[in-house]
Amino acid sequence: MLDLDRCRQFDADDPLARFRDRFAAPEAGTIFLDANSVGAMPKDVPARAARLWQLWVEQRRRGWTVSDWLEKPSLLGASIAHLIGAQPDDVIVTDNTSINLFKLLSLALRLRPERKVVLTEPGNFPTDLFIAQGLARYLGGQVEVRAIDRRDALLDAIGADTAVVYLSHVDYRTSYRWDMVEVCRRARAAGALTLWDVSHAAGAIDVDLEGSGADLAVGCTYKYLCGGPGSPALLWIRKEHQKREWPTIAGWMGHADLFAFASDYEPAPGIMRQLTGTPAVIADELVAGAFDLWREVRKDELVAKHRSLSETLKALLEQECGDLGVAIDSPADYERQGGHVAFRHAHGGPVCEALLDAGVVGSFRKPGVVRFGLGPLYLLHEDCWIAAQRLKEILETETWRDPKYQKVSV
Amino acid sequence: MLDLDRCRQFDADDPLARFRDRFAAPEAGTIFLDANSVGAMPKDVPARAARLWQLWVEQRRRGWTVSDWLEKPSLLGASIAHLIGAQPDDVIVTDNTSINLFKLLSLALRLRPERKVVLTEPGNFPTDLFIAQGLARYLGGQVEVRAIDRRDALLDAIGADTAVVYLSHVDYRTSYRWDMVEVCRRARAAGALTLWDVSHAAGAIDVDLEGSGADLAVGCTYKYLCGGPGSPALLWIRKEHQKREWPTIAGWMGHADLFAFASDYEPAPGIMRQLTGTPAVIADELVAGAFDLWREVRKDELVAKHRSLSETLKALLEQECGDLGVAIDSPADYERQGGHVAFRHAHGGPVCEALLDAGVVGSFRKPGVVRFGLGPLYLLHEDCWIAAQRLKEILETETWRDPKYQKVSV
Repeated sequence: MLDLDRCRQFDADDPLARFRDRFAAPEAGTIFLDANSVGAMPKDVPARAARLWQLWVEQRRRGWTVSDWLEKPSLLGASIAHLIGAQPDDVIVTDNTSINLFKLLSLALRLRPERKVVLTEPGNFPTDLFIAQGLARYLGGQVEVRAIDRRDALLDAIGADTAVVYLSHVDYRTSYRWDMVEVCRRARAAGALTLWDVSHAAGAIDVDLEGSGADLAVGCTYKYLCGGPGSPALLWIRKEHQKREWPTIAGWMGHADLFAFASDYEPAPGIMRQLTGTPAVIADELVAGAFDLWREVRKDELVAKHRSLSETLKALLEQECGDLGVAIDSPADYERQGGHVAFRHAHGGPVCEALLDAGVVGSFRKPGVVRFGLGPLYLLHEDCWIAAQRLKEILETETWRDPKYQKVSV
Repeated sequence: MLDLDRCRQFDADDPLARFRDRFAAPEAGTIFLDANSVGAMPKDVPARAARLWQLWVEQRRRGWTVSDWLEKPSLLGASIAHLIGAQPDDVIVTDNTSINLFKLLSLALRLRPERKVVLTEPGNFPTDLFIAQGLARYLGGQVEVRAIDRRDALLDAIGADTAVVYLSHVDYRTSYRWDMVEVCRRARAAGALTLWDVSHAAGAIDVDLEGSGADLAVGCTYKYLCGGPGSPALLWIRKEHQKREWPTIAGWMGHADLFAFASDYEPAPGIMRQLTGTPAVIADELVAGAFDLWREVRKDELVAKHRSLSETLKALLEQECGDLGVAIDSPADYERQGGHVAFRHAHGGPVCEALLDAGVVGSFRKPGVVRFGLGPLYLLHEDCWIAAQRLKEILETETWRDPKYQKVSV
């Protein structure tokens, strides 16, 4: 039996509690459980932006040389490498997730030229599926996107024709987490590569790209990683693959000698060749607000906190709301769960809208899950308690029946 | 003979002079002639950013629906369409120039499947060349990038094997401006497409994509268009080509029904299919600071002002510094000149460094041009006078010989 005191005790024992004050506080009483959409804003973002305005006003083109604008993609990557099991020089922050998926999927196909199957699941995130379908269409009959629904069937389908197993580490609806080690083992045994989208995992759960034997990965930075709405995305390549091919999008920033203004492309030695054009300077500076915090966070502490928040929330949802029609949809085994906790309710959409009005920000995804995304650096166990209490009250009083809650936002 | 009074008279008669106060003022005495690298910061950028911080802090994921975050790419495109001769619904702001070049070059090749030549010049901007080389390599023998140095020879080379003529409207060194009408006419006659990079033109000179008969165009927004360092780029497609193929990078934001979370890609009806992943929300909001100004600017006024600044600057450089070794490198005919004025001097690099110290920000490009980029919304003719006087003094006193000026910045 969990109560408020117990939740507060968890918070008192939390080594990451010290970070909460380094994020801007929302309106009093609001509980943001939408780290799976947009993470919280680090407090020093406005000051960082102000410094950048100053550079823009006073330095203009000299900013390219007096500042670290051009190094930011690699500096940022290095800041969070430890959270995703990457070496610091194997990850960059650049472009967006869709573009990075395109770069790495096209690379994977190039690295396995004799194979044509991209193996994925139909419930993969839309943009992941679309990028594969678009590339397949562009390349004509050279590529086949094969989407297999059942997980064991998908693993069994990995074979001699599989170029790449192409999955999201965590399902954006149910929060199911693939066993990355097992998938990579099966893929490797068949000579196939793996390309992972860690958007719903990085900054929340234990992601260990190198240790799991993954080959390629992308992920967004505006969810759990708190980089700000629309911030640039991660791109990781296992070192042994980095130099084997030119990048598909061979841009200026990926050239071996940036300011030679050469006429012929020569790729930069390692991961840097995957940069494209001018980096998103302002966005990068704001991402750094969060990534400077992440530098101070040990992964084991992060994972312990996220697990504790998840298990507390799941226990509270069952204890307080189980009799009111709430059924946890995300895996019971934490090792199979991603960044958010998902639950079903027969009227999940209206319930989610009523929660918004009650100051609990979650999100609803068809056909019927409510998602609570858990940001470990700024949430307390007490927040989980409050959210569960507000949900309980909504269900008991059936306020979700109000006509204004029947139109469900995205 | 031009003198300071005459320059001031030009300024008094300038209908765009009203915009100068809407840009943040640099340190007193600094003359920024680097609109070709990073344009000036509109004064309201900090206030716009502050509103966005508030949304990030208070609304988080609701920002996706309560704000115009997802519509910004098309709203921004519509704001400056009139400056580049585009219909408002034919241009979007998204990703960066290199990525947009990749999208449109791959589209052009798809639209001309029976042809394999990408015709360009070896002096095209590096990223433009690299993108073509990278795509050609990815597609193997299906594409040939043919770079021809002499302009008349390039035009004569347009033939039955040419898929696309692939040029920068303005040369980033000399400021030579291609005659877009003539190139498009020659290309069309041969059944080839044209793809233009208007980075060194948009927001400065007369760009008329539709009227010139162009097919495809990209351009950056952080130079003359003042969108901020690393801001997202333009992408334009003539309406008749927009729906003919899927985008090469088929991302979520280009889907016909964004929030259906479909498993199968279905392209959005028009230009919107060229969007990729989540838009760069913060960068977009800052771009809007400048683009809201551009909405108020008539293209004929813009062109008249830029022409007047250019001719004043060229006349002053010749009048004041012609005997001191300065030779204008950009075309004498304004109709063939782009956004910046380029001049040669035997010691251009050190002279450019000495100018920086004297508060005149230009830039140097090997092997020997100094570039002064002219931003018509915030520069005065008097600025041109002051810059020429400072250059004259540097040349007369030979301060550029100081050892500290021998290392030339980029």
